[in-house]
Amino acid sequence: MMHIERAVITAAGPGQRGIPLQTLVDRDGVTRSALAVLLREIQDAGIRKTAVVIRPGDEEAYTEAAGVLAEGLTFLPQVEARGYGHALSLAKTFTQGESFLHLVGDHLCVSDEAAGCARQLVDVARSEACAVSAVQATRETTLSLYGAVGGLKVPGSERLYRVECVREKPTPTVAERELVVPGLRAAHYLCFFGMHVLTPGVMEALEARLAAAEGSGVNLSSALDDLSRREKYLALEIKGHRHNLGVPYGLFHAQLALALRGVDRDQVLADMVTLLAQRGGGVA
Amino acid sequence: MMHIERAVITAAGPGQRGIPLQTLVDRDGVTRSALAVLLREIQDAGIRKTAVVIRPGDEEAYTEAAGVLAEGLTFLPQVEARGYGHALSLAKTFTQGESFLHLVGDHLCVSDEAAGCARQLVDVARSEACAVSAVQATRETTLSLYGAVGGLKVPGSERLYRVECVREKPTPTVAERELVVPGLRAAHYLCFFGMHVLTPGVMEALEARLAAAEGSGVNLSSALDDLSRREKYLALEIKGHRHNLGVPYGLFHAQLALALRGVDRDQVLADMVTLLAQRGGGVA
Repeated sequence: MMHIERAVITAAGPGQRGIPLQTLVDRDGVTRSALAVLLREIQDAGIRKTAVVIRPGDEEAYTEAAGVLAEGLTFLPQVEARGYGHALSLAKTFTQGESFLHLVGDHLCVSDEAAGCARQLVDVARSEACAVSAVQATRETTLSLYGAVGGLKVPGSERLYRVECVREKPTPTVAERELVVPGLRAAHYLCFFGMHVLTPGVMEALEARLAAAEGSGVNLSSALDDLSRREKYLALEIKGHRHNLGVPYGLFHAQLALALRGVDRDQVLADMVTLLAQRGGGVA
Repeated sequence: MMHIERAVITAAGPGQRGIPLQTLVDRDGVTRSALAVLLREIQDAGIRKTAVVIRPGDEEAYTEAAGVLAEGLTFLPQVEARGYGHALSLAKTFTQGESFLHLVGDHLCVSDEAAGCARQLVDVARSEACAVSAVQATRETTLSLYGAVGGLKVPGSERLYRVECVREKPTPTVAERELVVPGLRAAHYLCFFGMHVLTPGVMEALEARLAAAEGSGVNLSSALDDLSRREKYLALEIKGHRHNLGVPYGLFHAQLALALRGVDRDQVLADMVTLLAQRGGGVA
């Protein structure tokens, strides 16, 4: 049984840092920051210690946004703007050479099950004792937003894949050549969910990539591609949906998804119908 | 013709200060802060100079949220927590003894017409040469959230009322006794929209109320009640809808209202139907 006792959220990207501070109503009907929703997702997976990679100076705003969940939070300021892979590598000391849960700060996931998405992922990683990335079958048309994996279904499993390669924001041509996964719907690929359980091997792969990049940026996908050739590395199709909060209407869709799965479902549906009726008379 | 060349936004309230920093997609499909949406509303009314009453320390976050509209912005930090009326009174010097447009920072309005809500209001105030509050016929059940006015329709006008009294967050009993306006639907009252054109007389009434309050808070409604007995003071039923961003799902509803009136209408409706269908199978 693999120990997973720490989590790392990355939130230092230029267009990304304001997103965890946005406000949503969660499934329990409580108004929270997106950061607090992520921190509860982590807690529900049985993890108590979280580090957040932030832009220097964002400590106060993030502490406020975390509210009562600020306890047990470590901030890791990313001083150089060297991209996502570099941001994650800053958590090497924090993760203490153990496997850890990693969430991106600009996505939010809504589970279709009682267990949260992070819980589903961590449970599989613990029992399989390897790195596992959460993935979602994603239409070809939005491939340019995500990292994607190629691989084969693990025999006897329903939603688990052995990863054979990883490509960052692939073109449809690259995807068709390298990332077709038997059993998925046509023109669908396994794209990252923004949620991973990563091993110390990922930190090593990142460091090697960063050294080779000589000061420029490195993405996580390239390190995970390296990992797929060295270690057992799985992908889990999550029973749930990923929402990128950084795209137009991303927050709106995440809020709608939360509401439809939450305690306020009926009221929110009724209010939407009222609004639609008010505006039904045509556009001014 | 009354000159209205300045605007004042209040955003210093404890639960209120984070709201203008929230992100929305506006009717043009552009992702903006709620503050930037308000500043454009003000610009569309032909007003170029705006002061924002903020909590000390919020200058940087607000400047960032204003983006290219930060030019022409004045910040007025409210050091003492003495409430809404006090916050507004801090703009006395800024308004230079002239009438001004006032918007609350935690509401957003969506016009049913080509002209924005602020434009509708300012046009009427300019031609009537008096204070005018934007109002919306509001159900009795949400009276506890708003200031409300009692009065009579101006003869010959369709949406203009002469204000005879103002009550802050009235109970249904008080409303039934003092605020019934002939011609409205049953159990509906004229509640504030969070948007006013105010005269220097309001600043005087606020100062008198603040002096009498000896250090405690004062609301705007009491000063407007004073005004209604001293000056010509009108209320305009706006062709549009007010959205309180500070209540649960307030941002969500405002986003939906903007989208339904905006360039992304068809795409947003289609995406909503997809999400509803995904979640249609019942709650887990």
